[in-house]
Amino acid sequence: MPISMYSASVPLFTHMFGNLAQWLDRAEAHAAERKFDTSVLMAARLAPDMLPFVKQIQIACDGPKFCVARLAGIQAPSFADDETSFAQLRERIARTAEFVQGVRPDQIDGTEDKEVTIPRRDGSFTMKGEAYLKHFVLPNFYFHLTTAYGLLRHNGVPLGKPDFLGRIA
Amino acid sequence: MPISMYSASVPLFTHMFGNLAQWLDRAEAHAAERKFDTSVLMAARLAPDMLPFVKQIQIACDGPKFCVARLAGIQAPSFADDETSFAQLRERIARTAEFVQGVRPDQIDGTEDKEVTIPRRDGSFTMKGEAYLKHFVLPNFYFHLTTAYGLLRHNGVPLGKPDFLGRIA
Repeated sequence: MPISMYSASVPLFTHMFGNLAQWLDRAEAHAAERKFDTSVLMAARLAPDMLPFVKQIQIACDGPKFCVARLAGIQAPSFADDETSFAQLRERIARTAEFVQGVRPDQIDGTEDKEVTIPRRDGSFTMKGEAYLKHFVLPNFYFHLTTAYGLLRHNGVPLGKPDFLGRIA
Repeated sequence: MPISMYSASVPLFTHMFGNLAQWLDRAEAHAAERKFDTSVLMAARLAPDMLPFVKQIQIACDGPKFCVARLAGIQAPSFADDETSFAQLRERIARTAEFVQGVRPDQIDGTEDKEVTIPRRDGSFTMKGEAYLKHFVLPNFYFHLTTAYGLLRHNGVPLGKPDFLGRIA
């Protein structure tokens, strides 16, 4: 089968959401074992002017959500960004994965040249579908996933590269 | 134009290599200004059992190199992994980018179902071209780029998200 806008996006999002949920399980178990509160991890940052773990997860969820919504031309579910626990983060990931998986290939395939508008604090900008997926959605998605993973590793959570990639072959 | 194995890989690699080279410039300028040696950054790790910055860059280069070589069925250039300076890392990135850009679309397009074998310390494994690109190459590439970026940010190098994404619209 030729690669398509759907095959290059949704299966990859779904796969990584599954991995991410497992990192949270591992982090929660680690915190329990070491007797510290997971709120320490939620607030962890790699630099004072980088976003904390909780925001990394929220944004890692929003990227795929807006990607499929914009490409398919449908409404994305709205979340309050008020998670204060790992249970709530897990719920956020599950609800996002459910939305993303609910979109059919025929809603996304063929959107390579569709104009997509991305609203930003400093003014919205427009990209074509394929460039949006390749140069905005994917780098951002992996950026926030990797930063979340790095924060957990930096804080001693026992994870390794196979946990980042998940089951791939 | 429909998305293709080439369009979903090479332009994205090239774009990120350009960004990465700029982070190195910024890091070197920061080290000079703060009067510390860039070897400090080369050896930086986010966790004791994670790879240092220099390895993150080497692996970020090797992923795209092997990706295009395996998909196109050609020989990848070999590097000694002996870089000890930012100048040498920049050279590594430039030589890798040159190799990747030298591969033509017709050498990579249509490799969605091509069997690709990935040698690993713990035994090689085989994936189809599209799965290899989506579930191995891209997550690994962004993992090492983001970890390198996070290490620089953690060590005070003035970078921001726009530097990670580069010029996208």
